[in-house]
Amino acid sequence: MPYSEDTIAAIATPPGVGGIGIVRISGPLVEEIARRIFRPKKPISHLKSHHFYYGHIIHPENEEIIDEVMVVLMRAPHSYTCEDVLEIHCHGSPLVLKQVLELSLKLGARLAEPGEFTKRAFLHGRLDLSQAEAVLNIIQARTERELQFATRQLQGYLGQEIKRIRDCLREFKAHLEVAIDFPEEEVEIAPLDAWLPRIENQVLKPIKGLLQAYSKARVLREGAIMAIVGKPNVGKSSLLNCLLKEDKAIVTSIPGTTRDIIEEVLNINGMPIRVADTAGLRKTKHAIEAIGVERAWEKIAEADIVLLVIDVSRPLGKEDKEIYEKIKEKDIILVLNKSDLTPKIDEKVLKKEFKDLPIVHISALYGQGIEKLEKTIYHHLLGRDVSMPSFIPTLRHKQVLERAIEAINRIKEAMVNGLPAVFISVEVKEALDILGEIVGETTSEDILEYIFSQFCIGK
Amino acid sequence: MPYSEDTIAAIATPPGVGGIGIVRISGPLVEEIARRIFRPKKPISHLKSHHFYYGHIIHPENEEIIDEVMVVLMRAPHSYTCEDVLEIHCHGSPLVLKQVLELSLKLGARLAEPGEFTKRAFLHGRLDLSQAEAVLNIIQARTERELQFATRQLQGYLGQEIKRIRDCLREFKAHLEVAIDFPEEEVEIAPLDAWLPRIENQVLKPIKGLLQAYSKARVLREGAIMAIVGKPNVGKSSLLNCLLKEDKAIVTSIPGTTRDIIEEVLNINGMPIRVADTAGLRKTKHAIEAIGVERAWEKIAEADIVLLVIDVSRPLGKEDKEIYEKIKEKDIILVLNKSDLTPKIDEKVLKKEFKDLPIVHISALYGQGIEKLEKTIYHHLLGRDVSMPSFIPTLRHKQVLERAIEAINRIKEAMVNGLPAVFISVEVKEALDILGEIVGETTSEDILEYIFSQFCIGK
Repeated sequence: MPYSEDTIAAIATPPGVGGIGIVRISGPLVEEIARRIFRPKKPISHLKSHHFYYGHIIHPENEEIIDEVMVVLMRAPHSYTCEDVLEIHCHGSPLVLKQVLELSLKLGARLAEPGEFTKRAFLHGRLDLSQAEAVLNIIQARTERELQFATRQLQGYLGQEIKRIRDCLREFKAHLEVAIDFPEEEVEIAPLDAWLPRIENQVLKPIKGLLQAYSKARVLREGAIMAIVGKPNVGKSSLLNCLLKEDKAIVTSIPGTTRDIIEEVLNINGMPIRVADTAGLRKTKHAIEAIGVERAWEKIAEADIVLLVIDVSRPLGKEDKEIYEKIKEKDIILVLNKSDLTPKIDEKVLKKEFKDLPIVHISALYGQGIEKLEKTIYHHLLGRDVSMPSFIPTLRHKQVLERAIEAINRIKEAMVNGLPAVFISVEVKEALDILGEIVGETTSEDILEYIFSQFCIGK
Repeated sequence: MPYSEDTIAAIATPPGVGGIGIVRISGPLVEEIARRIFRPKKPISHLKSHHFYYGHIIHPENEEIIDEVMVVLMRAPHSYTCEDVLEIHCHGSPLVLKQVLELSLKLGARLAEPGEFTKRAFLHGRLDLSQAEAVLNIIQARTERELQFATRQLQGYLGQEIKRIRDCLREFKAHLEVAIDFPEEEVEIAPLDAWLPRIENQVLKPIKGLLQAYSKARVLREGAIMAIVGKPNVGKSSLLNCLLKEDKAIVTSIPGTTRDIIEEVLNINGMPIRVADTAGLRKTKHAIEAIGVERAWEKIAEADIVLLVIDVSRPLGKEDKEIYEKIKEKDIILVLNKSDLTPKIDEKVLKKEFKDLPIVHISALYGQGIEKLEKTIYHHLLGRDVSMPSFIPTLRHKQVLERAIEAINRIKEAMVNGLPAVFISVEVKEALDILGEIVGETTSEDILEYIFSQFCIGK
């Protein structure tokens, strides 16, 4: 990939006073700059690559010593940028670093832009875009987990997975092009059918796997999201209060009291759980309550675990079953509230209706069964595979992957509907391009600029 | 010099986020730590000294990658501390650095104290104390001049000069010891006379040279100090006001008005001059005025240039001559004030009395002659050799050197007075020890501790 031929320089260590400070220079002038300003302690004929030399930086005009330094030259392509890179390791004095940097600028380098060293590594193909982003994430990591994700991302696994998926799509596209070029041979229909399962297994499935890894990582990073759902007046808010051990939600016996979504962070055995009480889920003509219901459904869509609350003092209703139908794809714990009252529901019926969901009896009013519920939640979340996926998409990647799924669904639809190969081919190209944004092959200049502008100067 | 056998580790780059961050480890465990936590990209049999390796830092237990790094091992004695030193160059993430540092601590290193790497370099004899101090001065330099002084100090010239001076004293001491051991041969008297000029030329003169370099450097760094002196009521404060072009000092015609020392910074053609008006110098019984007079003498002792103000409208008095006698060793400009009045002093007499001092006529009252005076001050200061001395003692060194001069004067006195060799030898040892404090040979543990405690951790 072509790149401008100029030489860039910057202070690569954090600003301020320290033991060691580094000026980093990259580009074609590096060796010439070294020759002009570096005087090794022991005379040498030339700088060996990757060797650490002791010596002095001097003003090339008056030979005045600026600092005692260690210098290392890394010849292209075996360097961070894939270009010749010179690192000058000075005493950690802001003034020394400024002087050495200014010297290199005088000798033809220009000040590097934020992230420009990493951008060059990307443009020279040493890092894909997801790896370049990982560098940023490593530097900015605030928790060990974030750091772990970023370090794994830097390994390039995500890029490799994307490559496998795109290779499959590329093969399919080549196939379609044969069909377009030789339509009279009518080769397209039989093989297209054969492609459907391949797209399902080699494209959709791995993308969905990545999205699952994203949400799994989010659970580990930010805590699981738990939604409390149920028809109105089954005691959802009371349950939330029990879990929170404080009176946060307004509890009344008037159906439809809760309109806003209350979100609190629950700590169960050290596991952070963001728990959302949601408006009673029922069809309503009340405009404001309707908004609450809508929000509740959005919240449920996000949730990692759902507590479905049933009032056992009333018979099982149509609404209960309707709610279950809507959330049955989620991880659910059935919470039978008001168990202090005479039960009106047979547990056998429940097991049949709700297909062996885990059941916990509680009385939110009396705080009974709450400990058991907590244990169930904890084991339920832990029991899922909480091992760390080996690589994790970032939010940007997740959004790209979601767009990719839409594109692939359009491919599938077109195939199922028997649309012409030329039409399908356009959709395949679209999916390829979308996926290419993750690794930076098809990323727009705006997005590239935005990504690298977040770096510090010197990286 | 023996030194504790433990391994120290610290983050060597400034705190905060940057492109590159370094963990530095020094001591016998370095190679073992590298073996446990560093995985080079290309397998290697062992780490070559001073080679820059690309690879990963891993948790030794679970092989989890912590960061992508460059690593360099510098084997003893070719390292900053003269011990085996490992530098791990990580992405500039505080969290990564913390993790890598913690790993090295787990593997047996301990956290380095402030300045401990440099202290080891000193204790192993790679740097003398003046050079170790230079490292600190480089890091903390705030102006290019300070940096220049510090860089020169790091070259070790001061230590070499001190060594030459001490070598001469050591030779003299050996000589004295022969005289002590074999008193019957009476060898001591004739050679002792021969030693006097050597001590003058090879000991006192270079020490005085260093002190001059100190004050010259101070002039260049902080500006010259100029004192305005003269007997009461000759117009010193009026002159100061003229020079400052504002009414700062209270001007009255009552002798003894000025008691405090007024110090202002004067800017003459861009040269900063700290100018001190001083209390009229006369013997006084007034207690408070006496304090002012005392302070004035202290100020004059510090001054680089002295304006001796004489009132030409009055005859030359005893006081004028007494003041001159006290300051005649200084650089003096004779300022003849009140030249608007009829002169009562013959200039020929002045030239004779004041041995061809440069003379400027002024009238502080009318502001006459002030420009000429400024020019004279400027050329007087510039005319002195203002080229930079090649090495500059610091304030600590200056104080040591002043004590050394006192000790050497005692040696001279003892020799002149014909005191026994054993007595002289004690004084010589004293002078040797005092000078040894500059390079750290005889420096007390307290002072060492104080010096190194000013460093940052990781240096």
